[in-house]
Amino acid sequence: MDNRPIGIFDSGVGGLAVVKYIKKLLPNEDIVYLGDTARVPYGTRSRNIIEKYSIQDIKFLLSKSVKFVIAACGTASSILYGGYENNFSFHYSGIIKPTCDIAIKLSIKKKIGIIGTSATIKINKYQEYIKKYDKNINIYSQDCPLFVPLIENRFIEPRNKITSLMVEKYLEDMRGKIDTLILGCTHYPIIKSHIEDYFGKDINIVDSGFETAKFVENYLKKNNMNNYTKKIGEVFYYITDDKDSFGKTGSIFLDEDIFKNISVIDLDIF
Amino acid sequence: MDNRPIGIFDSGVGGLAVVKYIKKLLPNEDIVYLGDTARVPYGTRSRNIIEKYSIQDIKFLLSKSVKFVIAACGTASSILYGGYENNFSFHYSGIIKPTCDIAIKLSIKKKIGIIGTSATIKINKYQEYIKKYDKNINIYSQDCPLFVPLIENRFIEPRNKITSLMVEKYLEDMRGKIDTLILGCTHYPIIKSHIEDYFGKDINIVDSGFETAKFVENYLKKNNMNNYTKKIGEVFYYITDDKDSFGKTGSIFLDEDIFKNISVIDLDIF
Repeated sequence: MDNRPIGIFDSGVGGLAVVKYIKKLLPNEDIVYLGDTARVPYGTRSRNIIEKYSIQDIKFLLSKSVKFVIAACGTASSILYGGYENNFSFHYSGIIKPTCDIAIKLSIKKKIGIIGTSATIKINKYQEYIKKYDKNINIYSQDCPLFVPLIENRFIEPRNKITSLMVEKYLEDMRGKIDTLILGCTHYPIIKSHIEDYFGKDINIVDSGFETAKFVENYLKKNNMNNYTKKIGEVFYYITDDKDSFGKTGSIFLDEDIFKNISVIDLDIF
Repeated sequence: MDNRPIGIFDSGVGGLAVVKYIKKLLPNEDIVYLGDTARVPYGTRSRNIIEKYSIQDIKFLLSKSVKFVIAACGTASSILYGGYENNFSFHYSGIIKPTCDIAIKLSIKKKIGIIGTSATIKINKYQEYIKKYDKNINIYSQDCPLFVPLIENRFIEPRNKITSLMVEKYLEDMRGKIDTLILGCTHYPIIKSHIEDYFGKDINIVDSGFETAKFVENYLKKNNMNNYTKKIGEVFYYITDDKDSFGKTGSIFLDEDIFKNISVIDLDIF
C-alpha cells in the first residue's frame, strides 16, 4: 500500500473531469491537482513551450510527493507520449493509451474520429497509437481550437446556440463517416451533450477523462498502491492565477465548494 | 531628432493594428514589435499576472533601445494606467487616454459604451478617466472574453455567423442606449464590420489603435523626436511562441510577408 496522494495536472479546468472520476472510483485517495490557469490554453502553443510547461507541472507535483502523476490534458499527454514518458522514474499515465484502447474495442466499423486541440492533432500521437495497433482502422481527425476558450468561459449549457454552431463547424466533415469519436481533450466532455445532439445516438463517444481514471484504478490495484488509511480522501488544488474563475467553474462542475482548498503558486521556480 | 525605434507591445496580434497605423502616419520610423504569443490572452488573467507580464514586455523593449514604448493592449494599458506609468522614466503611452479623449469629443448625447477584455472592464480605467472628465457622461461597459480567441483563430471574415452571434450576445444590452462605442482592446477593430452590422451606422466607433497611433505621431513631432534619416522604416517582430500562426495572421493583416522579420525570444530572463 501507498498513502501518498495521486497527482493530476492540466492547463485549466479540464482535468477536473479526471478528479471527479477518481473521487468516484477511488474515494479513499488524496489528490493533488495542478491547473496551470495563468498559461491556459496549452493547445494553441508550440511544441517547445508545451514541453517546458508540462515538465514544470510534473516537477511541481513531484515536489508534493505524489505516488502517481496523471497528465489529465490531451495536449501535454501528446507531448510526453513515447520518448519522454518512457524515461520517467515515477508512475505515470497520460490519456492517450487508455483512451485509444477503448476506442479500438468499440469501433466495429474501424472508423474512428479524433478531436483535440491544434497541438494534439498536429503532434499526431492518438493517430500513431491506433495505426500501430491496426493499420486498417480509418482515422478522421480535427482540431477544435475554440472549444477550450468556450468551455473556460462557460458557454456550456445544453443547446447553447454558439457552442452548437461551433460543434457543427468543426465536426461536419466527420458526420456519417465514423462510428466512434474520441474526445481527445479532457475539457470536451463538458460539452458532450452538444456533440451527442449533433451526431445523434448512433456513435460511441469515448471520454478520455473517464478511461484514464479507470486505467489508474486498475494500475493502483494491480501494483498494490492504494491508500487504505482513509475513508474519504482530500483534494488539494493548486493553480497559477487567481482563485475566482477556477473556483467558480470548479465548484459548479464538482458540485461542492472547492474555494477553501485552493492555493495559488508560481511555477517559474520549477 | 531621435533615430531609435518605437517599441510596441501586445499579448498577441492585436497590436499589429497600431503597427499598421504607425507605418502609415510615420513611415520613416523603425519599429520593434513584441507579441507575447506564448502567454496570450492577457485579458482573462488576474491583475498580478498581467502586471508581471507587462513589466517583462517593457523591459524587453527597453533592452532594444526604443525611444518610446506603446502598450498597444487594452489590458496592459489598464494595469499600467495611473500609478505605474506616472513613474516611468521613458516616453510611454497606453491606449486609455488617446481613446477616451476622442470618445468624449464625439459623444454628443454623453452616452458611451466600452467593450474590452474581462480584466480591462474589471480594472475600470476607461470608466474612471471618462467620469473624471465629466461625471454626467453615462457609461455602459461590457467584457467580451471570447472576442480575442475568435480573432486569434481567424473567425474574422465579414458576416461570419459565429462571430455575429457572439457580437449580439455581448452587445445586446448596449444597443439603443449609446451614441459612441470604444473598442477598448486593440484586437477588436479586426471584427469592426460585425459590430457595425449589429449597431447600424448611427453610432461612432472609436478604434483605440488608430487614436493611439495619432497620439504618438503628435507627441514625437511636439518633442522633436522623429527619425529623419530614413525614408522607409523597418519593423522587427519578436514573439514568444513559434512563428507559424503569428506570421500567417500578421501577413494577412499587414498585407505583406512578415515571416523574415520575426524572431522568437524567451521573456523569462527579463
